[in-house]
Amino acid sequence: MSGFGEATAVRRTGEGRYAVALDGDFGFEQALNGGYLMAVLARAALDASGRPYPISTAASFLRVAKPGPAEVLVETRKSGRTAEVARVSLVQDEAPIVDALITTGALDGDAEPLFSEVPGRLPAIEECVTFGGDKEDGFTARIDMRYDPATMGWLDGRPGGRPEMRSYFRLREAYEPDGVLLALAVDALPPVVLNTGRYGWSPTVELTWHMRAVPAPGPLALYGSGRLVSDGWFDEDVEVWDAAGRLVAQSRQIARAGRRPS
Amino acid sequence: MSGFGEATAVRRTGEGRYAVALDGDFGFEQALNGGYLMAVLARAALDASGRPYPISTAASFLRVAKPGPAEVLVETRKSGRTAEVARVSLVQDEAPIVDALITTGALDGDAEPLFSEVPGRLPAIEECVTFGGDKEDGFTARIDMRYDPATMGWLDGRPGGRPEMRSYFRLREAYEPDGVLLALAVDALPPVVLNTGRYGWSPTVELTWHMRAVPAPGPLALYGSGRLVSDGWFDEDVEVWDAAGRLVAQSRQIARAGRRPS
Repeated sequence: MSGFGEATAVRRTGEGRYAVALDGDFGFEQALNGGYLMAVLARAALDASGRPYPISTAASFLRVAKPGPAEVLVETRKSGRTAEVARVSLVQDEAPIVDALITTGALDGDAEPLFSEVPGRLPAIEECVTFGGDKEDGFTARIDMRYDPATMGWLDGRPGGRPEMRSYFRLREAYEPDGVLLALAVDALPPVVLNTGRYGWSPTVELTWHMRAVPAPGPLALYGSGRLVSDGWFDEDVEVWDAAGRLVAQSRQIARAGRRPS
Repeated sequence: MSGFGEATAVRRTGEGRYAVALDGDFGFEQALNGGYLMAVLARAALDASGRPYPISTAASFLRVAKPGPAEVLVETRKSGRTAEVARVSLVQDEAPIVDALITTGALDGDAEPLFSEVPGRLPAIEECVTFGGDKEDGFTARIDMRYDPATMGWLDGRPGGRPEMRSYFRLREAYEPDGVLLALAVDALPPVVLNTGRYGWSPTVELTWHMRAVPAPGPLALYGSGRLVSDGWFDEDVEVWDAAGRLVAQSRQIARAGRRPS
């Protein structure tokens, strides 16, 4: 099993063109994970801009990606003093799979916030629960998720009623959080809509995430919540807080609610 | 003074090409309003797809738009059963001004939510305050904003400390809320960062918004808040609730904090 760095590696083949090999271990039976695909896009955008961090990423998920070879196209649209913006696309079998707008730039690792919301609270990690973790490959073999039991009633057919999900997150390898790993973190939770009793596949249509600070080493805390489940659509916000108690990433996705009631 | 419909009108000039005339009244001295530009992009995307609503819009603001002629380019990337996705760009003087990913589709005006967060509360409209409203042209002459006084301390040099801003919103013309007007609504509040004492221009870098329901006639309520002001960046979430008490749009932007302290 390759590491996260290898699984997201991009190889420059020309001006704004990168070859990639998508790793089936970063997915589930239905599709490769969207956060994994955004991590691959981030690597290409960072290489093309020469800037250190993916400040802002907006991604539209058009088609299901398959494990195996694919290409990332990066088209620079604005190169400014503070940031660079590119249109970035993942292409497979000549069809666009993910279209993204990615802003890259610098962040000051020592910045002191002028204002910060206070973090939420997760139970101590030893009081959290796992699921699906005995497999030797796939998503749960790569990522160690420890869920807040208060958000896991859906596992036993007792969804809590509110669209929420909370968990610790870290890779099962020696890879500490960085900007690219945050892309994986913001889409790592099971869909919050499971707790409203909508089961089945919940494909993401659009996900935008922002990197807000340089993460400290250690496990990340993911806080997922939604505001509205209606008309077949739901939103999912995920905040990522690092082990030093700082907000390092925030995301919102809009997705289709699973069609299977509990 | 033209109406909102005329100010956002697009004229098809070819496959995926639209001519527009940007109206200087939808802006301030520094720039045209980003929400207004997104409304123009929405008109073009809706015309190109033939679908009724802008479900999801992610926009990167690359350069300042000037009043006058411009062009919108629409490139369809996926046309599915539920939704269509296009890359949409506003171009002026041969430079991209705004790049967007826009998903269009249908919404059921009678949908009953499976889950909805409860709305916030604004004071009664007659207890709210206005500012800058005596001008005969420009943004405040077109839009009637009535602000929650609890979020307006910055006007008197007493910023409340929290990045928040709340207001009623309606046009000063007979135009009831629709999908395109929601694009204007999500970017109509003054920057929430004013309440943390950062004055001066706060340019939006990226804004993503989702239309969640078909709005009822009447004034809209805008709830703006941020989670982190740090390292020159801030986030601003805006929820739009309609007069029937339903969440009709939600947005988040990432922007540069004004450089002038209070």
